[in-house]
Amino acid sequence: MARLPLPLPAMLPLLLAVLSVATAAASSRPHPLDPLSPAEITAVRAAVLASSLVPARPLTFHYVGLDEPDKPDVLAYAYGGGTARRRARRRPLQRRALVIARARGQSHELRVEIARNGSSAAAVRSHTVHRGAGFPTLTLEEQFAAVALPPAYPPFVDSVRRRGVDMADVLCAVFPVGWFGDAGAPRRVAKMLCFVAGATANFYARPIEGVTMVVDLDRMAIVGYRDRVAYPVPKAEGTDYRTGKAGPPLAGPQPAPGVVVQPEGRGFHIDGNIVRWANWEFHVGFDMRAGTVISLASVHDADACTRRRVLYRGFVSEVFVPYMDPVEEWYYRTFLDAGEYGLGLWAFPLQPGADCPANAAYFDGFYAGQDGKPVSGENRICVFERYAGDIAWRHTEAGFPDKLITEVRPDVTLVVRMVVSPGNYDYILDWEFKTSGSIKFVVSLTGLLEVKATPFTHADEITADAHGTLVSENTLAIYHDHYVTYHLDLDVDGTNNSFVKNVITTRRNTGDPATGGADTPRRSYWTVRREVAETEADGQVDVDAGPADLLFVNPGKKTRLGNEVGYRLIPAGATAASVLADDDFPQRRASYTKKQVWVTPYSKSEKWAAGLYADQSTGDDGLAAWSGRNRGVRDEDIVLWYTLGLHHIPYQEDFPVMPTLSGGFELRPSNFFERNPILRTRPASTHGHGHSANCSCDARKTQLI
Amino acid sequence: MARLPLPLPAMLPLLLAVLSVATAAASSRPHPLDPLSPAEITAVRAAVLASSLVPARPLTFHYVGLDEPDKPDVLAYAYGGGTARRRARRRPLQRRALVIARARGQSHELRVEIARNGSSAAAVRSHTVHRGAGFPTLTLEEQFAAVALPPAYPPFVDSVRRRGVDMADVLCAVFPVGWFGDAGAPRRVAKMLCFVAGATANFYARPIEGVTMVVDLDRMAIVGYRDRVAYPVPKAEGTDYRTGKAGPPLAGPQPAPGVVVQPEGRGFHIDGNIVRWANWEFHVGFDMRAGTVISLASVHDADACTRRRVLYRGFVSEVFVPYMDPVEEWYYRTFLDAGEYGLGLWAFPLQPGADCPANAAYFDGFYAGQDGKPVSGENRICVFERYAGDIAWRHTEAGFPDKLITEVRPDVTLVVRMVVSPGNYDYILDWEFKTSGSIKFVVSLTGLLEVKATPFTHADEITADAHGTLVSENTLAIYHDHYVTYHLDLDVDGTNNSFVKNVITTRRNTGDPATGGADTPRRSYWTVRREVAETEADGQVDVDAGPADLLFVNPGKKTRLGNEVGYRLIPAGATAASVLADDDFPQRRASYTKKQVWVTPYSKSEKWAAGLYADQSTGDDGLAAWSGRNRGVRDEDIVLWYTLGLHHIPYQEDFPVMPTLSGGFELRPSNFFERNPILRTRPASTHGHGHSANCSCDARKTQLI
Repeated sequence: MARLPLPLPAMLPLLLAVLSVATAAASSRPHPLDPLSPAEITAVRAAVLASSLVPARPLTFHYVGLDEPDKPDVLAYAYGGGTARRRARRRPLQRRALVIARARGQSHELRVEIARNGSSAAAVRSHTVHRGAGFPTLTLEEQFAAVALPPAYPPFVDSVRRRGVDMADVLCAVFPVGWFGDAGAPRRVAKMLCFVAGATANFYARPIEGVTMVVDLDRMAIVGYRDRVAYPVPKAEGTDYRTGKAGPPLAGPQPAPGVVVQPEGRGFHIDGNIVRWANWEFHVGFDMRAGTVISLASVHDADACTRRRVLYRGFVSEVFVPYMDPVEEWYYRTFLDAGEYGLGLWAFPLQPGADCPANAAYFDGFYAGQDGKPVSGENRICVFERYAGDIAWRHTEAGFPDKLITEVRPDVTLVVRMVVSPGNYDYILDWEFKTSGSIKFVVSLTGLLEVKATPFTHADEITADAHGTLVSENTLAIYHDHYVTYHLDLDVDGTNNSFVKNVITTRRNTGDPATGGADTPRRSYWTVRREVAETEADGQVDVDAGPADLLFVNPGKKTRLGNEVGYRLIPAGATAASVLADDDFPQRRASYTKKQVWVTPYSKSEKWAAGLYADQSTGDDGLAAWSGRNRGVRDEDIVLWYTLGLHHIPYQEDFPVMPTLSGGFELRPSNFFERNPILRTRPASTHGHGHSANCSCDARKTQLI
Repeated sequence: MARLPLPLPAMLPLLLAVLSVATAAASSRPHPLDPLSPAEITAVRAAVLASSLVPARPLTFHYVGLDEPDKPDVLAYAYGGGTARRRARRRPLQRRALVIARARGQSHELRVEIARNGSSAAAVRSHTVHRGAGFPTLTLEEQFAAVALPPAYPPFVDSVRRRGVDMADVLCAVFPVGWFGDAGAPRRVAKMLCFVAGATANFYARPIEGVTMVVDLDRMAIVGYRDRVAYPVPKAEGTDYRTGKAGPPLAGPQPAPGVVVQPEGRGFHIDGNIVRWANWEFHVGFDMRAGTVISLASVHDADACTRRRVLYRGFVSEVFVPYMDPVEEWYYRTFLDAGEYGLGLWAFPLQPGADCPANAAYFDGFYAGQDGKPVSGENRICVFERYAGDIAWRHTEAGFPDKLITEVRPDVTLVVRMVVSPGNYDYILDWEFKTSGSIKFVVSLTGLLEVKATPFTHADEITADAHGTLVSENTLAIYHDHYVTYHLDLDVDGTNNSFVKNVITTRRNTGDPATGGADTPRRSYWTVRREVAETEADGQVDVDAGPADLLFVNPGKKTRLGNEVGYRLIPAGATAASVLADDDFPQRRASYTKKQVWVTPYSKSEKWAAGLYADQSTGDDGLAAWSGRNRGVRDEDIVLWYTLGLHHIPYQEDFPVMPTLSGGFELRPSNFFERNPILRTRPASTHGHGHSANCSCDARKTQLI
């Protein structure tokens, strides 16, 4: 998509139109990190079904995604200078897929090579059967199949009839069972809970509390049933959130409509899956499990006339959501949304002009259905420039006797957004690129609370711990946590980095200059105690334990002043860590949530913080297990795992749909640039300008270092 | 200012025009909380000069501001129902001013009554001489007078000559001396430091290090001089930040221009100093010391058809900025920007289209000069609707077999902004009102670092603690902190509130339902331990010490479900607390910075966290001293003092001007509304709508409770 250099009046109607980037079609020669195209998914399916390695049928596809080339090959492709680069561009890297399929009760991992000529030819190159704990991501289709069972299951029919509910109004949902210490070979089962939808779109608000079913997903049969207790089904009134279903819409506060107009068109350019904007360039990918994947993010250094690496690959690795009610119907609700449900799978079309502003462009996301065939997911990721009225930098200088100097640069940022709705909750996941070199990560929670039916209609009736807040009559919203864990393979100005804690340390003023003191009445000050992480144990940080700047530096690169080139991690709220007991089963499966920061050496296979097979995982695979080897992380290719956490005590405002609650963090260049990289940005004006970030650099010098 | 219902094409040119609200002229009958008008300031000056209570001359005005009426009277005026309200509107409350003036070496406090008829008559009603420690805010004029002294001061002329600097390039600035344990009667002095401006607008970047002068501000004479050490003056090259002075502007990253267009015009209405927008109504004031003052903020509850109180009065009470170098030239740099310099005094005109977007409206701020005469400060506060591309709430429901439901409400917020530039730093201070009922507070730091000249040109040369970062050749940016303390007199749904800590507490699963357990394999969970603050000691909270929801509830109001009506404080980054030694002098003056949260009972005189006379204060007045009485705070009219803090280790990117670094917090309704208050907001659309928030409410019912 080219920038649209239309004059303003002609621009206006266009702003309201959706501009969708046909990811696969945009480039006949895929980038090595491009998601699999529909043709590639089709070819992979054919290869798997044709392979003699897994002859059993039925065979169901639980994951089909890019098996990305080795990092050195991708780096050579993307950044290999001069002639080598041109060579790399002529010969694209081998395309490979990773498939996780189920057949005859086993989880199969297959690596599939896809022919380079873009034809539909592909071939399985390796095959293993998963022997450890855990199962792959649930498919959408098996969840739909499972929820069709209860209405024909006599005990459930009986339970529903006894509660006076019309089965036609009943909908069920599939809940992973977690793991609670069972040894031996578990079955691939899930729990099913049902709700009274009826006239409301908010069926989570009306649970048929007390009824739990267990479904065997491989046999697709109900294998367990319990109707433990009957509570009133909460009323439908006041639960709907759709326009016109929640009362007169004009009664709510109505801000004035507004739209961002860009008189010179968009400032970003999309070439296949590469996005270029201001001083940034990065690759946008889509994965069934991770959702958005940002790769090869680099920033142009206008002073050095070079493009410099920041991040090799980043994505949401896991989302852990444990609920805090120990009763039969709730104790196991300890979701791993990425591993159990799939973030990409539960991303739905973004609504233009609402989920993303009118000036957004969109990426589709293709994934494989349970049958292995490609499914087209439209508008799964949007990209837009954010004009929030913020200020990039400014100063007013009143110190000159004869003049008041004011210089201001308004801030414009570039947002890459996906919304994931795995069941009741909605996660708005934003990457925000700033011209200052920062990347901000914002997670915004909205959607529906997971509630428990209760006999209570007033707080005064509650005498014991209710494990939640009464948010409506007969409706308890249960306490829970959200832990969103990012895998961020930082390559700060190169592959090898170190993790440095600059600990803020109080000192008494000794009066002795040799120890930093001075003969003055000042009694104390703080200084910085530098701690370089040697091994993974040093890389675990509780960010609330004490003040420190957390840096990722390139020990091989220094500024002209001798400072180590780096990026800094700045938490911005939502720093909760798990308070579950270390020996509790959900905590063992997500033990990494006790610290917000982990640093590991890069390993291509270490992607999923709670393990590749997260469903019924036991904690033997995953971030804490890998990191337990305590490998060296100093001057290595290291990965930052950052967990953004919230303890959620619900309030009545969160019902029936929750106003957005946000948390985030920032990766900010810190001695990365020689000086403020946006010092030379022009002041605000609405008149015509060029957009090139490179125009004063000699073209031969603008290559990446 | 009325909303502009112009069609879009006619609207466009207007968007780029400044709309400034002439605060005093907009209403001939002032609101009791309106800042003093120029006519009122003139009358107050005349009254003070005519008064026999302070006959000494010269008399200088250090503070002239509204002495607001007693809170019950203001509440009756603003919210008194029915006939009483109309009566109150007919008879405005007595207008009073507080004046702090210096004459013959004494600080005088005068309370002045202003005639009700709007004439220029006023009379001093009370007078006291301040006997305790500390001095009033420095005037701008005396700082300008002081900095004119050094070029004619022979020792300084000699020091400058010996350094080979041209005196024509030298500019000086006034730095408060702090307090370091001196007993007895101190003189009203300040330090002066000088810089080589020359061709650069960034004179702070080029200190004449080692030279310290002491100026007696009452005598306006240099009374102390020391030239301790000579370091090279850092180079001018690379220090300027003005367009064209920092190199070719097109070499910096250049985002595409963009402007927010509101086809139906602005959604807010300004009536005098009252702003009405969506469900919010509040009063915007200006104060020489506090800057922006927000009063009487109330939110319309569309479900209850009532307007409900949230905040009586809120403002930035103090900004403490201690530097961390104990040497002679730096140890005393422990600024109290509000008390020593005045935030309103150092707010300068906002740049339309840069500091605030094109759709902003502006308030002027009038203050008194040292001679007591009114000074017109244009465009000191802006108000604008923020279209940041955020989402107010959303849900996608994939659980229905035959339909995908997606409901989204984009977020629009209202920002009230001031920028304060007390010397080298710039603070962007935003109040952001949300239709969800939240108020977000965002502090963004930018501007220039305070740097120290040094012989070092490379980090390798530094062997001892340098107390800072080498950000340019011969330029150390010294470690420091920023503590921005808000005074927030919350009146959550009424005057009397309580402060509740809902502490997140881990529990073992006992298996016994009587203790909240259950016979399940879950081993742990967390629940909420409610702690109600009885006295001020309970109101001090280190927000990083452990997870808790911090609530301000109205114990006399409950929701229909029996939950206490409340607002919740949510820190969003920037939670640093001071790590200086408790016995260090600057820490004694700002001892409240050891905890982010304090809660006190309302007292009209307790406004300034570091005391009313902050210059050379000793800590005997101020938040910690008042709170030491340990008064009751349960079910009282309470005030939240929240300190937003950052430890600032500078980086090279912060030079020569610093990209914005932000922190904030949110006050979020939590069981305040019966349900999501924006449930019934209409979906996004660009077609015509009414804006009334009240249209389904019976007009008689919409009064404030």
